[in-house]
Amino acid sequence: MDVTALLSARKEPVMKRVFELIEDGEPKLLYEMMRDYPSRSGKGLRPALVVITAEAFGAPAGKAVTTAAALEMFQNWVLIHDDIEDGSDDRRGKPCLHKLHGVPLAINAGDALHIKMWEGLLKTRKEIGAAKSYKVMAKMAEMLDRTVEGQTMEISWVENKQWDVTEEDYYMMVHKKTAWYTVIAPMQMGAIIAGHGSQKAIHRFGEVLGRAFQIQDDVLNLVAEEDKYGKEIAGDIYEGKRTLMLLHLIRKCTPAEREKVLDIMNKPREQKTKEEVACVLQMMKDKGSIDYAKAKAKAFAAKAKKMFPKLRVPAGSARDELASIIDFIVEREL
Amino acid sequence: MDVTALLSARKEPVMKRVFELIEDGEPKLLYEMMRDYPSRSGKGLRPALVVITAEAFGAPAGKAVTTAAALEMFQNWVLIHDDIEDGSDDRRGKPCLHKLHGVPLAINAGDALHIKMWEGLLKTRKEIGAAKSYKVMAKMAEMLDRTVEGQTMEISWVENKQWDVTEEDYYMMVHKKTAWYTVIAPMQMGAIIAGHGSQKAIHRFGEVLGRAFQIQDDVLNLVAEEDKYGKEIAGDIYEGKRTLMLLHLIRKCTPAEREKVLDIMNKPREQKTKEEVACVLQMMKDKGSIDYAKAKAKAFAAKAKKMFPKLRVPAGSARDELASIIDFIVEREL
Repeated sequence: MDVTALLSARKEPVMKRVFELIEDGEPKLLYEMMRDYPSRSGKGLRPALVVITAEAFGAPAGKAVTTAAALEMFQNWVLIHDDIEDGSDDRRGKPCLHKLHGVPLAINAGDALHIKMWEGLLKTRKEIGAAKSYKVMAKMAEMLDRTVEGQTMEISWVENKQWDVTEEDYYMMVHKKTAWYTVIAPMQMGAIIAGHGSQKAIHRFGEVLGRAFQIQDDVLNLVAEEDKYGKEIAGDIYEGKRTLMLLHLIRKCTPAEREKVLDIMNKPREQKTKEEVACVLQMMKDKGSIDYAKAKAKAFAAKAKKMFPKLRVPAGSARDELASIIDFIVEREL
Repeated sequence: MDVTALLSARKEPVMKRVFELIEDGEPKLLYEMMRDYPSRSGKGLRPALVVITAEAFGAPAGKAVTTAAALEMFQNWVLIHDDIEDGSDDRRGKPCLHKLHGVPLAINAGDALHIKMWEGLLKTRKEIGAAKSYKVMAKMAEMLDRTVEGQTMEISWVENKQWDVTEEDYYMMVHKKTAWYTVIAPMQMGAIIAGHGSQKAIHRFGEVLGRAFQIQDDVLNLVAEEDKYGKEIAGDIYEGKRTLMLLHLIRKCTPAEREKVLDIMNKPREQKTKEEVACVLQMMKDKGSIDYAKAKAKAFAAKAKKMFPKLRVPAGSARDELASIIDFIVEREL
């Protein structure tokens, strides 16, 4: 199955709804800013998971579009704020919103899109009724709680120059920050809309697939080709992120090497030279840290694939689409 | 009536609910940050308006507490973000949250509190039923839309060094940024919960009272006593805010004076000297700008008081409380 074409077909009605939900208003500048990130092409993976899971469990076509649009809006407002928090320069091949308009207007535009996301969710009542609509909103709130918790873990490790972070801490952060919004909540929302599917089984499955996704994402951040990637290569090293590769590297270092790596990693991004970042990257390659992470991602992906049948998704074309997307998540090169 | 005692009595159950809604979680740091601003004493004016309006229109006591708590949470998350956007130093007598924890964690904590606000609103369903709960949530969304629009107007005037701002522009900004969340939405939410009261009449009344409130707020920003005020005196001049006094001053300036004032106002806050700020303040006093604003605030307050009977609030102790709060809003010295 051509997953890119599949995602793109699924994305179209969702993006249409997103732009309907961001109706025009005054001042124009605010509404332009809200539409900016959604207009830049993303994969549309998460909204597709909502829509396809809903269909796979028996919801009529179209019932999940507004919920999927809200999830897409979430991703965009959170990226606006994340980009400020991480001091990022580029997003999807263009300057970040705060680079274009300054931090104050960008924080405010992120808030505005967050509000529009809830307005969208309030409108799901007409599509799916009040009872399911409340459940979807409660699920969104639960997901958002986990996202900001994970974000706090990640930022405070960097800000406090904290290096006693274990792999278990990393997985907890990934669970909160990635697994919840990439797999668990999208699929659980789809199941809620369909009125079927085990929330618990999805949770367990999503945790494992989420790990595979995040580790793969971190590997791509280091080894992707710049012109396809849309953001800076090795941005995670510039930003001081605790990745599986970095934790592995630190474990494998001699005390002198460790000191050197931490000295570089503890510098604020604007003080890190290209050479220093390249040096950390080379050490990761030399110590087998990237291979280690790739192997872990593969193992979690394999485990997730083995768990997929436990979701008891009824046979049909939506189930096949779901299976292809799951393969794509863990095999993608971008 | 002792309005301070009245507000404080009304505030107590609301703040109790706020802290219940911010249950503990991991990492602790995030939850501590969420509780920080709500723990600093505020007047509690807006949540009191929700609760008292609901009672005045006949809602049983307690029905509006969770909605009022959500509004209080709104004020706190928006202040966390505003303080970053304005580059403020202090809030309610202590350093701003981003001064204590850095901008990245503070943006994220503001988002976290925004999410908790919606979780609170979702819980109103049990208190007031799904139909009213949806109406309250839609009202909150409408209010939030206006807030971020007003914020965009205000920030972009400063960032673009825009000086063709008229009094009408200023009133539009005040309508969106202040009147909506200080009077219109709190009272409309109270009326929704009671199932009575004219939304339109409240809107008209709130617009006028909101103007009185904001102008009074801007005057206090310039002339309050520092130890009572809790934030920097003349912060609005440091931040380059277009206030009614500033617009008046510019109109009354000679071309040379105007150039001098705009030169100072256009500087980023950290480049403004104490002397420059004092100079603008003195010019406002000399040109009668502060007296002009005080007179405008008084006129809008008088107009609002004249409009109050049109709200047709049934006689009773809640109506009396409402009337006292409205007097307080426009006569307060802090």
